[in-house]
Amino acid sequence: MRLEKDLLGEREVPADVYYGIHTLRAVENFPLSGYKVSVVLIKAIALIKKAAAEVNAELGYLPNDKAHAIALAADEVMDGQWEEQFVVDALQGGAGTSTNMNVNEVLANRAIELLGGQRGNYSLIHPLNHVNMHQSTNDVYPTALRIAAIWLLKPLSDGCAALQEALQAKEAEFAGIIKVGRTEMQDAVPVMLGQEFSAYASAIARDRWRLYKVEERLRQVGLGGTAIGTGLNADKKYLFMVNERVRQYAGVGVARAENMIDVIQNADVFVEVSGLLKALAVNLGKMAHDFRLMSSGPCAGLGEIRLPERQAGSSIMPGKVNPIIPEAVNQTVFHVMASDMAIAMAAQSGQLELNPFMPLIAHHLLESLTILKNTVKVVNEFCVQGITAEVERCQNLLHNSQVSVTALVPHIGYDLASKVARRAMEGKMTVRQAAIELAVLSEQQLDAVLDPRAMTRPGIAGARK
Amino acid sequence: MRLEKDLLGEREVPADVYYGIHTLRAVENFPLSGYKVSVVLIKAIALIKKAAAEVNAELGYLPNDKAHAIALAADEVMDGQWEEQFVVDALQGGAGTSTNMNVNEVLANRAIELLGGQRGNYSLIHPLNHVNMHQSTNDVYPTALRIAAIWLLKPLSDGCAALQEALQAKEAEFAGIIKVGRTEMQDAVPVMLGQEFSAYASAIARDRWRLYKVEERLRQVGLGGTAIGTGLNADKKYLFMVNERVRQYAGVGVARAENMIDVIQNADVFVEVSGLLKALAVNLGKMAHDFRLMSSGPCAGLGEIRLPERQAGSSIMPGKVNPIIPEAVNQTVFHVMASDMAIAMAAQSGQLELNPFMPLIAHHLLESLTILKNTVKVVNEFCVQGITAEVERCQNLLHNSQVSVTALVPHIGYDLASKVARRAMEGKMTVRQAAIELAVLSEQQLDAVLDPRAMTRPGIAGARK
Amino acid sequence: MRLEKDLLGEREVPADVYYGIHTLRAVENFPLSGYKVSVVLIKAIALIKKAAAEVNAELGYLPNDKAHAIALAADEVMDGQWEEQFVVDALQGGAGTSTNMNVNEVLANRAIELLGGQRGNYSLIHPLNHVNMHQSTNDVYPTALRIAAIWLLKPLSDGCAALQEALQAKEAEFAGIIKVGRTEMQDAVPVMLGQEFSAYASAIARDRWRLYKVEERLRQVGLGGTAIGTGLNADKKYLFMVNERVRQYAGVGVARAENMIDVIQNADVFVEVSGLLKALAVNLGKMAHDFRLMSSGPCAGLGEIRLPERQAGSSIMPGKVNPIIPEAVNQTVFHVMASDMAIAMAAQSGQLELNPFMPLIAHHLLESLTILKNTVKVVNEFCVQGITAEVERCQNLLHNSQVSVTALVPHIGYDLASKVARRAMEGKMTVRQAAIELAVLSEQQLDAVLDPRAMTRPGIAGARK
Amino acid sequence: MRLEKDLLGEREVPADVYYGIHTLRAVENFPLSGYKVSVVLIKAIALIKKAAAEVNAELGYLPNDKAHAIALAADEVMDGQWEEQFVVDALQGGAGTSTNMNVNEVLANRAIELLGGQRGNYSLIHPLNHVNMHQSTNDVYPTALRIAAIWLLKPLSDGCAALQEALQAKEAEFAGIIKVGRTEMQDAVPVMLGQEFSAYASAIARDRWRLYKVEERLRQVGLGGTAIGTGLNADKKYLFMVNERVRQYAGVGVARAENMIDVIQNADVFVEVSGLLKALAVNLGKMAHDFRLMSSGPCAGLGEIRLPERQAGSSIMPGKVNPIIPEAVNQTVFHVMASDMAIAMAAQSGQLELNPFMPLIAHHLLESLTILKNTVKVVNEFCVQGITAEVERCQNLLHNSQVSVTALVPHIGYDLASKVARRAMEGKMTVRQAAIELAVLSEQQLDAVLDPRAMTRPGIAGARK
Repeated sequence: MRLEKDLLGEREVPADVYYGIHTLRAVENFPLSGYKVSVVLIKAIALIKKAAAEVNAELGYLPNDKAHAIALAADEVMDGQWEEQFVVDALQGGAGTSTNMNVNEVLANRAIELLGGQRGNYSLIHPLNHVNMHQSTNDVYPTALRIAAIWLLKPLSDGCAALQEALQAKEAEFAGIIKVGRTEMQDAVPVMLGQEFSAYASAIARDRWRLYKVEERLRQVGLGGTAIGTGLNADKKYLFMVNERVRQYAGVGVARAENMIDVIQNADVFVEVSGLLKALAVNLGKMAHDFRLMSSGPCAGLGEIRLPERQAGSSIMPGKVNPIIPEAVNQTVFHVMASDMAIAMAAQSGQLELNPFMPLIAHHLLESLTILKNTVKVVNEFCVQGITAEVERCQNLLHNSQVSVTALVPHIGYDLASKVARRAMEGKMTVRQAAIELAVLSEQQLDAVLDPRAMTRPGIAGARK
Repeated sequence: MRLEKDLLGEREVPADVYYGIHTLRAVENFPLSGYKVSVVLIKAIALIKKAAAEVNAELGYLPNDKAHAIALAADEVMDGQWEEQFVVDALQGGAGTSTNMNVNEVLANRAIELLGGQRGNYSLIHPLNHVNMHQSTNDVYPTALRIAAIWLLKPLSDGCAALQEALQAKEAEFAGIIKVGRTEMQDAVPVMLGQEFSAYASAIARDRWRLYKVEERLRQVGLGGTAIGTGLNADKKYLFMVNERVRQYAGVGVARAENMIDVIQNADVFVEVSGLLKALAVNLGKMAHDFRLMSSGPCAGLGEIRLPERQAGSSIMPGKVNPIIPEAVNQTVFHVMASDMAIAMAAQSGQLELNPFMPLIAHHLLESLTILKNTVKVVNEFCVQGITAEVERCQNLLHNSQVSVTALVPHIGYDLASKVARRAMEGKMTVRQAAIELAVLSEQQLDAVLDPRAMTRPGIAGARK
Repeated sequence: MRLEKDLLGEREVPADVYYGIHTLRAVENFPLSGYKVSVVLIKAIALIKKAAAEVNAELGYLPNDKAHAIALAADEVMDGQWEEQFVVDALQGGAGTSTNMNVNEVLANRAIELLGGQRGNYSLIHPLNHVNMHQSTNDVYPTALRIAAIWLLKPLSDGCAALQEALQAKEAEFAGIIKVGRTEMQDAVPVMLGQEFSAYASAIARDRWRLYKVEERLRQVGLGGTAIGTGLNADKKYLFMVNERVRQYAGVGVARAENMIDVIQNADVFVEVSGLLKALAVNLGKMAHDFRLMSSGPCAGLGEIRLPERQAGSSIMPGKVNPIIPEAVNQTVFHVMASDMAIAMAAQSGQLELNPFMPLIAHHLLESLTILKNTVKVVNEFCVQGITAEVERCQNLLHNSQVSVTALVPHIGYDLASKVARRAMEGKMTVRQAAIELAVLSEQQLDAVLDPRAMTRPGIAGARK
Repeated sequence: MRLEKDLLGEREVPADVYYGIHTLRAVENFPLSGYKVSVVLIKAIALIKKAAAEVNAELGYLPNDKAHAIALAADEVMDGQWEEQFVVDALQGGAGTSTNMNVNEVLANRAIELLGGQRGNYSLIHPLNHVNMHQSTNDVYPTALRIAAIWLLKPLSDGCAALQEALQAKEAEFAGIIKVGRTEMQDAVPVMLGQEFSAYASAIARDRWRLYKVEERLRQVGLGGTAIGTGLNADKKYLFMVNERVRQYAGVGVARAENMIDVIQNADVFVEVSGLLKALAVNLGKMAHDFRLMSSGPCAGLGEIRLPERQAGSSIMPGKVNPIIPEAVNQTVFHVMASDMAIAMAAQSGQLELNPFMPLIAHHLLESLTILKNTVKVVNEFCVQGITAEVERCQNLLHNSQVSVTALVPHIGYDLASKVARRAMEGKMTVRQAAIELAVLSEQQLDAVLDPRAMTRPGIAGARK
């Protein structure tokens, strides 16, 4: 044990940990969810600490050796070391101060060690005076969140690109497979299975574009704004240099916001990003529903497509295989939709110069980004890529349906075509048979009009043009 | 009464109404919410009907006189006539078919009348064969919804611009009023009241930009895709001409989507728009909370600003005036947030070639656009523009607080500054007094460091630069 | 025009309206949603006004003739007169004060008229001093909301009872129709169609019970607590008498809460009721999904049941009939779920002695009650009662499926049964054929084990017991 | 490595793990959220496995030694051993089958070991034929979830009781501290600080009652219903005995539902429980908001109460202490509210005989129960118990306010009292001074009427009784 001290008094801290008294109190204060703070967020904070330390050294505020040690320690954190030292609950109160202090303390103690000192000897490197120099949680934390979000947007966007490609491959593969199209769960008009996959691909393409475009809104950061965005206690040179340094290290185009007071207190940009994640979720959810529907059966369902078999489906029903990947997708979709609501509730509850609920926003936003990234990959690799068409089944269903009746409308009108439909239905006959019986068109005309493949393209089947 | 007929049989329809049997059945089927279908949506559908009739006439599918009568009838609807004829409940089943049929029937009967015929004599103008020619609810309805949404986005965006200007005017007006900044409801560091309003203005500026940019995503429409986007029964020339005609009449840059199957079945773009409306709502909500907080009192609250008095506040407490406009804002914010959830739930529930829940999406999206438009105007004109500052109160609170202690940190370090803060708090003295008592800096130095106005700008107060 | 006056000055009010200056200002302040305040809520407020006036007369605070006139006017409002006089937007700020004042003013002016006076002559009957005597919006409004909610719970509960009965009638009607049961959209084990309806009936029965039980939580009211529940300005005798009178007139067992401060400021009971409405919605939504699924087709879907035809389904596809009632149900379900979120957000935003967002809570709660009442009736009368079974289709699907394989497990084990299932699937043969081919049991044993009807009851098919 | 086999083929499983091929495939299929399946749920499943094994032995289906080994293994799991063996992601597809199989495999391999066999030698104990005998995921998993939920309800309810007591202790402690009551953030009428805490206590008492009552709805289970609730493959004696055994081991009154088909497919009861958790959350959230508001300052806020100091609040502002516990509470409140939405979305998405999204429901429900349990304890012990009153501040604010003006209304009417209020406000004088100036009552009368303490109780201050 070592003894540490803060505003509230002294506390013993385990000798072997790198965090200190601030972290310890936070751990005690927030035994709430058991969720860990996002590793990506921790890394982004460490990156800021490194940038700040170096800039502070260059400006003469911090001795070079101290800055160097802090930067080294930050590098280690960014490399994934010391993960077990970040121990504060994700749903912490305090607007992220405890996570910022956790990083400050771990970097300070590790830097002390690198300088040959003993953990806890803050005269060498002080968590606040040195590591946190010219910073406040209130500018560091939302900046780090923006960086972390951008970092996670990239692989998500890549995953969407890969999913789009897989869907387009299926579009090509299934281009010639004609089947019943359905609206409101009722037989509608013919469609190609490939066309159905083209619609999924187009939707996901839209998501890619959205995620690509929204990144720029995350780039405006308030680093240097310190406590409330006014920049109190931050040297103006520091203010410019630290943002440039962070931009460089993060590999993303962050820039100082024109109005730092705004970006520190307002969380609408996270609502915006989350809203777009929800749009992606909605597209994934719709697609997953469709996959479950079209693969239903194997005998007593639609059975138009077959999903790759990924695991035995039942502990009691032998041979049963379930659409587990789409089911998992639907669940992550609901999860992300719920998180979107949590983010919005927290975002609109900001008060005056700060939003105290940034940790909740960070938790849900980074989780949604991560879970969607995983979901997109899983649905692509474990489901879409292995989907096969049940060609014969598609044909049989089409053949036994009356969906071609719509093609009669331009030729005989809606009301008469309705009669043909009714007759076919009641008489359990084909549309062609009913049309002949009701003598609405000649057989030759019907041959021209009732061509299902023609019905999957714009134009009036059987019309002379 | 007149007798009409459909697939299911005959029904008497009141002689004097313009709608017909399809509408009548829908009214009977959906006595659910009492909400009316949006007038803006009805107008957009009528616009499409006009464009389609004209194009169909030009292509020789429809006699000119019939097309002209339909177009005239559509003009009347777009001018606001016949509103009482659109009678189907907003929460109707059937993917919007009943609203489409309601328009078809009203236009048909009104066009019949214009041609000198009797309502119900559909041999003159048929709701389906003529008015709905080359159309399906499934391409008309989502196209109309996109147009209606764009129409409503414009005044909302204008309202945001006006609100932004009003906030900026207050930013200028309050530029020199120094006060206590607060984070997590605790006294933090000094800030100008004008800076606080600049943050609101910046947030609203971001909303304007978002709403401006998202419009383009709404422009991709599936008109001509008919039942499922394949374009069955739609002449290719019609397909191109009708979209061009609609673009022209609507005054917005709609264009045929590359993949009409996609835009007919996927509703993610409405989720995207709603998500951005929610971001605006979140900014409005945060601002409204702040107004209520800063105007609390008049005696036993913060009392830093005064809102314009709009009405007596209490039926029992004389003289009480409440922050009713911000309260109303907070309510519309919650309303819009809830609608966003409804839209997303409906959007992810689409199945195969169609989303049957488009009416719910349309209802909530157009309501949110309208309510936000009203909210932005109300908060601007009835609240923001009339806000006054309680300058003396702001100064007194600042003077009696210890928020200037942060400025000591660069000079004496965090731990020693904490001691000064504690001493000031316990001794009920100012920071300056405590600093002198603890002899942390000379009085001269303190004069330079403890300048509240300097603390509202970037830089280290009292540092020689 | 007549001239009226309030705290803020004078205003002209149209001569022919019954509302006054307070209402007028509120109309101007809240041009937000266009939603009307619930008529049921208005009636409940009027009821309270009547009770209060009579009690105040009995206690000598109010002359008998004035009290009598107020009571008469309140009776008229409760009878549905003067609906057009309640003109304030539902999403008003001010915790309901404007609606309370709207009622106070209408009753005052109508009572004045009944006494032979001129509207606006408040010396005869004063909206505040007389109609609102011993009341505050803050005790009247939440009390009225509780009464209105109880009033609406009753018909909803009755509607659930009727729906439950209809489902049970179908349970009986379909008791002997065997079909494929499905889990995760895959063929599972045999089930009776009647059993499926029994599950719906049981779920709705649970809803009835919940709605019945929750009523008691709404009975605790704070009437007499005045502004914040402390009862300031309310004679103790009044306090007891007015609650008793309200109980009697409302026909529901309201009673004064032990802690009036609590019930005036806390809105959790509305969250509780809304949560139970959501549970009902969830059951309705699940049932509606199932109906759409089982009635899918008519040719290329499951086609196990047929829903009553309610209207033509498509403006382009002749003969198409859609499951419009279940679709409408799914939409009202999403609507109610979203409203639940709005209610909860408003409820948790109460501050200190009051929740200023009661109007939003009232709007969403009463709408949900009403919409669900309508939904339950519609789904019952327009859908459930007319559902018919496609018996032959059910049998064919069952016969062609391999769902009986599960019955083999107790006899030959899971792994061997899996082999039989696979063999049947690959060889497109029945389970019986595959079992014989793989010689897992004798034909005689298979006859005993593979009895689908036995599989719909507890027990091991073919076991000697 | 050892080789295992399933429907889809062979796979190598690490030699030292207790789970098998089914679990392994599930781990590979669901790399989604990283959330672990609730330990409490795992224990409840193990309990069911033990009960089933014993009953199966008693009925002669399972040799005693096998059953005994399974029961021992289950005991170990219930004691918290082998937690690291439950490795499937919480957001798994497949309706819980993977978690059920994970338990089956771990118990089988551990039981094999206890019998002296080698892990993987399923001829000794088979995960499906023996451990899962007479069970399906579909009856086991929802039953286990109900048990787990009841187990977690109890400590949550106890936590509410403790919180209620702490609040009541503060009610007593603060009984005589008079202060300004506020409605809509504006000064209203006097109230005792103790009365404010009584309202919190009453609300939490209501939550206790709700959580106590809802337990009974969770008791109806479908264990023995197997795949879809029909009880296929479950001996009737087993059906009765296993539920009795589970009841006994679980220590909670679970009982077989009358309609097992219903309870297996419908998830409304989880929506109901979650809705009540949300009501608790709403009360906690409102209280937390109030604490943050009343403790705002320390100098430039309301400052009426002081929260216990739990940690330093800022990395830049020395001496700052924030209301971190209420902030954490508000966040868990939003979290629970969002989870409620996730649960409802999943619950309404059930299809036919099963809800495939039970894992999502389980995750969110058990998390909400756990997080609320922690939240209630934290807010009680780290916040409520240590709250102190700033008596002098309360008095000063009251003295400087005009809230006593309401007491004049019964004596001089609303309009005249409004004038007094305005005069006091404008003249910065007390109500008494203004009343004297306007000569509305004699000084003697005013002494009787303007007694703030009398205003905190029912009755008309200054009235002769």
